[in-house]
Amino acid sequence: MKKIFLSVLLVGLIAPAIAQQINEKDSTMLREIYNASLINGKSYHWLDHLSNKIGGRLSGSLNAGKAVRYTKEELDKLGLDKVWRQPVMVPKWTRGFQEYAYMETGPGVTTEMDVCALGGSVATAAVGIKAELVEVQGIEELASLGKEKIEGKIVFFNRPMQADLIQTFQAYGGCVDQRYSGAKEAGKYGAVGIVVRSMNLREDDFPHTGAMSYGDLPKSQRIPACAISTNGANQLSNTLKLIPNLKFYLKQNCKIFPDVESHNVIGEITGSQFPDKYMIVGGHLDSWDLGDGSHDDGAGVVQSMEVLRLMKEIGYKPKHSIRVVLFMNEENGLRGGREYAEQAQLKRENHIFALESDSGGFTPRGFSFDCDDANFNQIESWRPLFKPYLIHYFEKGGSGADIGPLKKDGIVLAGLRPDSQRYFDHHHSENDTFDAVNKRELELGAATMTSLIYLMDTYGVK
Amino acid sequence: MKKIFLSVLLVGLIAPAIAQQINEKDSTMLREIYNASLINGKSYHWLDHLSNKIGGRLSGSLNAGKAVRYTKEELDKLGLDKVWRQPVMVPKWTRGFQEYAYMETGPGVTTEMDVCALGGSVATAAVGIKAELVEVQGIEELASLGKEKIEGKIVFFNRPMQADLIQTFQAYGGCVDQRYSGAKEAGKYGAVGIVVRSMNLREDDFPHTGAMSYGDLPKSQRIPACAISTNGANQLSNTLKLIPNLKFYLKQNCKIFPDVESHNVIGEITGSQFPDKYMIVGGHLDSWDLGDGSHDDGAGVVQSMEVLRLMKEIGYKPKHSIRVVLFMNEENGLRGGREYAEQAQLKRENHIFALESDSGGFTPRGFSFDCDDANFNQIESWRPLFKPYLIHYFEKGGSGADIGPLKKDGIVLAGLRPDSQRYFDHHHSENDTFDAVNKRELELGAATMTSLIYLMDTYGVK
Repeated sequence: MKKIFLSVLLVGLIAPAIAQQINEKDSTMLREIYNASLINGKSYHWLDHLSNKIGGRLSGSLNAGKAVRYTKEELDKLGLDKVWRQPVMVPKWTRGFQEYAYMETGPGVTTEMDVCALGGSVATAAVGIKAELVEVQGIEELASLGKEKIEGKIVFFNRPMQADLIQTFQAYGGCVDQRYSGAKEAGKYGAVGIVVRSMNLREDDFPHTGAMSYGDLPKSQRIPACAISTNGANQLSNTLKLIPNLKFYLKQNCKIFPDVESHNVIGEITGSQFPDKYMIVGGHLDSWDLGDGSHDDGAGVVQSMEVLRLMKEIGYKPKHSIRVVLFMNEENGLRGGREYAEQAQLKRENHIFALESDSGGFTPRGFSFDCDDANFNQIESWRPLFKPYLIHYFEKGGSGADIGPLKKDGIVLAGLRPDSQRYFDHHHSENDTFDAVNKRELELGAATMTSLIYLMDTYGVK
Repeated sequence: MKKIFLSVLLVGLIAPAIAQQINEKDSTMLREIYNASLINGKSYHWLDHLSNKIGGRLSGSLNAGKAVRYTKEELDKLGLDKVWRQPVMVPKWTRGFQEYAYMETGPGVTTEMDVCALGGSVATAAVGIKAELVEVQGIEELASLGKEKIEGKIVFFNRPMQADLIQTFQAYGGCVDQRYSGAKEAGKYGAVGIVVRSMNLREDDFPHTGAMSYGDLPKSQRIPACAISTNGANQLSNTLKLIPNLKFYLKQNCKIFPDVESHNVIGEITGSQFPDKYMIVGGHLDSWDLGDGSHDDGAGVVQSMEVLRLMKEIGYKPKHSIRVVLFMNEENGLRGGREYAEQAQLKRENHIFALESDSGGFTPRGFSFDCDDANFNQIESWRPLFKPYLIHYFEKGGSGADIGPLKKDGIVLAGLRPDSQRYFDHHHSENDTFDAVNKRELELGAATMTSLIYLMDTYGVK
């Protein structure tokens, strides 16, 4: 009974705050924002260009440069108060033109496998590598096997994403260490290469790339790393049960070049009352090279641009300075996010709110927040305003990688949380393409982001 | 302030109920249900067969018969207490092998257009029909034009679905009268045919079919009716502005046959405490003939079958009799739904709860209910149980067409409400296909339905 009494009490305290916040002006403003996005939205048109006219935009590539120019030009057309490019040095890694793997189940009996190099991997020797496989369920199992069983072998990391987790990002979080640190760990035990099961909840033939790191491993211990499709991983694992000494052949000629200059792209509507308090909204302009990066993170880029365009369209003049920031190099370095935060600190720009969209262009469900209780409670009091738009998810949690470096006391960080069920079907693979994005879902996301920015601007940060 | 006081009071009354209901047993049961569906689910496998091995299943077709046999066989394997087919006479309409249309913008200058006959339409004359077009935004405008301007013309209904409505079913509801009653109304004014803009929020090249009715119009006034794709409708409308006297040609040879026998397919787990109180869950087995009916309503069929399979798998023995009912002929007659309700009444079977899934296999968001306040409040008190699964939508509203005939005092009717943004991209068209269904989304829907049935069975109907 104690518990019940407490909840009545709590609800009693929160209810007046809720009632206060639902005023008609805010409701009308949100309705205008959603209408403008769904009827005259530009986000889908921009994404079409970014995906179909430019395509995959890995940091340091020609396409990444094209994406910088295109988004700068489009922001220039919006009549913002300022638009500029912020220089940032980024890593340059290329996949090369050879990616080839097979399993050899007997002398001369080979089956080709779909693989792709992990981002940042070294090449194999020009003739490729061929070795027996050791299948493990993760880094712990690798450690338990030790040098004796690993040396000279190719390690096959095959722990699948957990299907019974409702939020697929949790399932990703529970597996991605194999991809990110697998080569570093296996290299320590003298492995000659690694193959990682793709971070994908679906069974299909697409290998999924993604960032990896050798940490401070000496060059001599850096071994080539590739991802295999989920169907391929199942086939390999099943075949290994029958033929434990099968050999795996891998050839890839990816290459790391010296850093090159690239840019974040920034646009600003200067605040009418608090011009030196900044609220930013962003996504990342770079993508992996396999698909066209429509969900990761073309969607976040065009939604963030749309936030400022929608404000202009409905004639809303923000009190705080609102910036769209299109970050370069989230995928393999986070240099853009770090540079933006560093420059903000150097220029003593007071950032009070940052929102990122980097979880795909699917139907928005809400946001997760990294902030104190006072701010979280204020945000929660806006729930009823979002209800007509089926936005229901307001939880504490992560925000976004690019805005992470801005973290400090008092800032509110937020991440858009779209429906996540299909995200890892496309993530970092050849089928992260424009046709997988639904126009309305993308536009609903942009409107939801704009609504939050509007409310944060109106009621301020606590 | 009055308003605030009231909400505190209301919440104060509801909160204890909420607290009571979240007991550990229920939480654990829901977790088991979701796990079983996501890890060992059969719904996606069944849908693969229904969609890819059988395909479109229009009432009275060979495929509809195959779907009856297949689902009966699969239910037979589940070890239910009873499985049977319930005979029902259904209409038989065939599309024929000719569907052809063009606009003629000058002598001999023609442009082909993508069209499909509406379900139930009569054929054109064997040589087709050719006439000038009158574009209208709906039935009201048609009436305002009157016989003088309509006679001898083809009426082009071109009111689009409203993009700014968040729930796409509302946008559908605001347009579908053009498709359902357009030919009946235009026929009264002496039109020779109608073309209807497809019920689709996307701009693409797929014409969408669907049910239409001539009401009690005499045979002589029944005119052929077809749908045109949204791109086609835009093109036609734009061309009409330039060339108002362009002619439209349509040829189709669809045909209505005498009714034929078909079946509902029913499976039952007999209740341990209340064997003569029935709770049913269902979808409809028939589909339109253009795609393979994966979302409409293959998804609902396999999810409903999965509800009973999941109960068996987790070893749950219901107190009430739980039936899965796979209805025949929702699309063009509702004969299955009517027959089931009629037989239930004849046999004095006391139905207390019915749940339908007929809104696509997308990520579930919740349910809408047609019931009294006492039952709705009980259901609302279960919200916290569903929160971990991101199920948040519990509203009063419609349920499902097939279970509608069961409506009576005291029964609770419910409809699964999945995310609706993509639904009308696929609905009744050639691209309602298996690849548009995501395995996890389908499985989450099945688990959500099973969870509601479990709770209704456990706590009963008020």
